[in-house]
Amino acid sequence: MNPIPEINSDKIREARKRIDLMVHWTPLMRSSALDKMAGCELIFKCENFQKVGAFKARGAANAVLKLDPSQRVNGVATHSSGNHAAALARAASEAGIPAYIVMPSTAPEIKKQAVKEYGGVIFECEPNLLAREEGLRKVVDTYGAVFIPPYDHWDVIEGQATCAFEIFEEGLSLDVLLSPVGGGGLLAGTALSAHFYSPDTQVIGAEPEGADDAKKSFLAGRRIPVEKPNTIADGLLTSLGEINFGIISEHVTDILTVNDEEIIAAMRLIYERMKLVIEPSCAVPLAAVLRNKTRFQNQKVGIILSGGNVDLAKLPFR
Amino acid sequence: MNPIPEINSDKIREARKRIDLMVHWTPLMRSSALDKMAGCELIFKCENFQKVGAFKARGAANAVLKLDPSQRVNGVATHSSGNHAAALARAASEAGIPAYIVMPSTAPEIKKQAVKEYGGVIFECEPNLLAREEGLRKVVDTYGAVFIPPYDHWDVIEGQATCAFEIFEEGLSLDVLLSPVGGGGLLAGTALSAHFYSPDTQVIGAEPEGADDAKKSFLAGRRIPVEKPNTIADGLLTSLGEINFGIISEHVTDILTVNDEEIIAAMRLIYERMKLVIEPSCAVPLAAVLRNKTRFQNQKVGIILSGGNVDLAKLPFR
Repeated sequence: MNPIPEINSDKIREARKRIDLMVHWTPLMRSSALDKMAGCELIFKCENFQKVGAFKARGAANAVLKLDPSQRVNGVATHSSGNHAAALARAASEAGIPAYIVMPSTAPEIKKQAVKEYGGVIFECEPNLLAREEGLRKVVDTYGAVFIPPYDHWDVIEGQATCAFEIFEEGLSLDVLLSPVGGGGLLAGTALSAHFYSPDTQVIGAEPEGADDAKKSFLAGRRIPVEKPNTIADGLLTSLGEINFGIISEHVTDILTVNDEEIIAAMRLIYERMKLVIEPSCAVPLAAVLRNKTRFQNQKVGIILSGGNVDLAKLPFR
Repeated sequence: MNPIPEINSDKIREARKRIDLMVHWTPLMRSSALDKMAGCELIFKCENFQKVGAFKARGAANAVLKLDPSQRVNGVATHSSGNHAAALARAASEAGIPAYIVMPSTAPEIKKQAVKEYGGVIFECEPNLLAREEGLRKVVDTYGAVFIPPYDHWDVIEGQATCAFEIFEEGLSLDVLLSPVGGGGLLAGTALSAHFYSPDTQVIGAEPEGADDAKKSFLAGRRIPVEKPNTIADGLLTSLGEINFGIISEHVTDILTVNDEEIIAAMRLIYERMKLVIEPSCAVPLAAVLRNKTRFQNQKVGIILSGGNVDLAKLPFR
């Protein structure tokens, strides 16, 4: 059985070329203070410096650029708690087409503003998956726009895969590469890139205990959706997508969970020691490394800092 | 008259080599969003990524490494509201000698902690210059340590000059280069580097209105110390040093002031748009550019982001 019929190594490379004018090749950063603390060599991929402040710029750009002109004409639509929304609005704006975005009313103000700045049209809904899907259906019916899902989509996953592709292209031979997991777009893409470009690198997902459906699904061998997610990592509230689950089951080594206290502590370290602004979701992999130091001891550990769109008035530091 | 007898172009280059194992060659960053907002091309020199989180690592390393063994033996001492303190403690620790640090009781907790982590011995004093100098005299008398001042010292200025030196070494031809000004170590060093390596680049100091002694001194042609400084930019409360004033008078084009509201707004932009953690002092040059857009229109403008040591529990964002 070939579990990944849609993506191969050439396609991820081609995707990176396709989106080249729309995204940054983001830098890697290190911190000797954090290495000492973690007992391993940490290499951080700074997607917080990415366009729209998150890795989501990659998948959205790839999905929009892969639409043919007849598909593009009525624009694109999606539902998203934030970063995918801004990413799709921006990608659409650069392609000269409209973007219709269904957002939960609880989405951070900074994320709503970003969508508006890129010219996206926002439709607010209740903060649950049913309301989002209902809102989206209306928008698609009304405008004839093409739905670009936040994660459960081959072109989106292929786009997110370009992030880990860049790490491997720089010739780093990592023992492990960690990414946060919410819907699973980044983790699935990361796992595929490792599979094609660095098969000796283990890929591990990191997830908040308060939204641990990926861990549960991974162990059970079937998708178990999260019901009442509760975590400070607002980018990871969604349940694993179907395509994502398939790729993750096949190509991910493990999924580690951490609690909110550990997430905040890791977030603080990244602010204080690395001087980087990140959103809480982004601190989950470092929290997982610090909770499992023995496992990673003396290894070369990559961490994808997935995004930096945080409400500065609500930072969790006391 | 030669106003800069102690430093020449060879010496700054030598200083950069001397401190090479003790400091980072920090990266330059750009932001298309901020360029658009400012109407010019901004290039940020990220000293917030420097060792100890601030450019002060340079001057302290240079001053300590220039001591001969007989001078080093009893250690070094200083008074500082923060970053120089940590920088000197670290430089001393790497050189294997003790550091005695007189700090105002009001210094941010994070800066006191940093000194302790590097093994520096702290002596607290009242938050004014007289109390600092008194405290320092006692420490020097007691331990026989060598006083390394925070800014009013040739070796310190020469060390700070290596920051702008790196910018020019990368081949950037800037129209203007801005640095914040407190005691004037960074601004004087920056002006000297521009003088030797990029004489067509104007150097401009940026200062809070609530501590505008550099502006007043610059206009009056003599040092006018600040009396009751009041600004959120806690790194810029000190008055201009004597050597610093001489260099600044000769080689700086202008000094621009901004108020605290403008500093906070610029700080917020750097957090939100660049995803960088900086301290308030560090936002002063961007605030000055945004206040004087016409002056900088379409120019290539360098900004030194001087440091990132901020108390995260007290960020000024609402």
